[in-house]
Amino acid sequence: MRVFTEERDWGQFHDPKSLILALVGEVGELAELFQWLPADAAVDRAREDRLHERAGEELADVLIYLVRLADVLDIDLADAALRKLRGSSARFPAEEVRGQAPDKS
Amino acid sequence: MRVFTEERDWGQFHDPKSLILALVGEVGELAELFQWLPADAAVDRAREDRLHERAGEELADVLIYLVRLADVLDIDLADAALRKLRGSSARFPAEEVRGQAPDKS
Amino acid sequence: MRVFTEERDWGQFHDPKSLILALVGEVGELAELFQWLPADAAVDRAREDRLHERAGEELADVLIYLVRLADVLDIDLADAALRKLRGSSARFPAEEVRGQAPDKS
Amino acid sequence: MRVFTEERDWGQFHDPKSLILALVGEVGELAELFQWLPADAAVDRAREDRLHERAGEELADVLIYLVRLADVLDIDLADAALRKLRGSSARFPAEEVRGQAPDKS
Repeated sequence: MRVFTEERDWGQFHDPKSLILALVGEVGELAELFQWLPADAAVDRAREDRLHERAGEELADVLIYLVRLADVLDIDLADAALRKLRGSSARFPAEEVRGQAPDKS
Repeated sequence: MRVFTEERDWGQFHDPKSLILALVGEVGELAELFQWLPADAAVDRAREDRLHERAGEELADVLIYLVRLADVLDIDLADAALRKLRGSSARFPAEEVRGQAPDKS
Repeated sequence: MRVFTEERDWGQFHDPKSLILALVGEVGELAELFQWLPADAAVDRAREDRLHERAGEELADVLIYLVRLADVLDIDLADAALRKLRGSSARFPAEEVRGQAPDKS
Repeated sequence: MRVFTEERDWGQFHDPKSLILALVGEVGELAELFQWLPADAAVDRAREDRLHERAGEELADVLIYLVRLADVLDIDLADAALRKLRGSSARFPAEEVRGQAPDKS
């Protein structure tokens, strides 16, 4: 993504706020693919070729802007995710929260 | 993430629509970190320890739900991103689009 | 909202991109309220006092930034919505689309 | 919007989670209109006919789903917004916060 950006001289557009808006745009396209599907049918429907491919493209777009944003912010994304997951494992002990939806509010 | 989910029996909550909403929640927290910063100061401000750490946590949360969603949808996220990037390279030849913002509309 | 902003001299922060990010932040908080609720239980659960109040607050926040954004962009929001709804009525004739989810893709 | 929905028998699709995803889709389209514009040029560019009209359409779409969601959740949106604005006026006294960006974190 860094090479792709430099070859096109697009770094000038990639300030954090613009990249977050681009990320939001892709998340919006992802949401549109699933919005009207019945919740309990979504996984099955996503096995069909067309939706599977479309969903893959939108997930990819989200990842691409996420990686680019991490690069611009000088954040090691994989390391951050592993640390977050370790933190969540400690905060939500399996034996205590088993089967209950986490309450964010 | 898959192990983390299974240990807590949280797979029952992870249908695609719910996971996209969780992703939206994390993107929203990311947006809040940057919303009022002047666009041209955001990168510098994100070098400060506190914002750097908070941004890392929010990017991590987005990645975690993205990876989980890809798993639920049986999508190879890395492969999808590489294919998307190859497609974009072909659609936007460097010599033609150099320095121009891509027009999505 | 305009008076509220001027009294605090916050107009300097309210460029369109910043306001959209603020809107995204509020939509994210709204999403978090509903993300883990079973789809078919969400309306009933939202009748409970606490969630009803929280949802009202988040919907309000979204509306507030939306109205502020329309003001900054010099857009008559009510007029735009009525025109959009008339357009959708023409594009989706009731007798043709009755009971079918609209396909955006 | 309620009449529009009933005429098409689309109420069956309008559970809260689906409507939030639809809202997210429209916010994403709004974000895409502004993502690559320089922050300090966005208001001027939005005076141009094409962007002004597109922005109006996307703001309208966001409002339409927001109003529909409020209806489904039995929330008085205007009342909620006025109460929220009164609360914010009390929380952020003009003389104390004048000219400072509100800190959400």
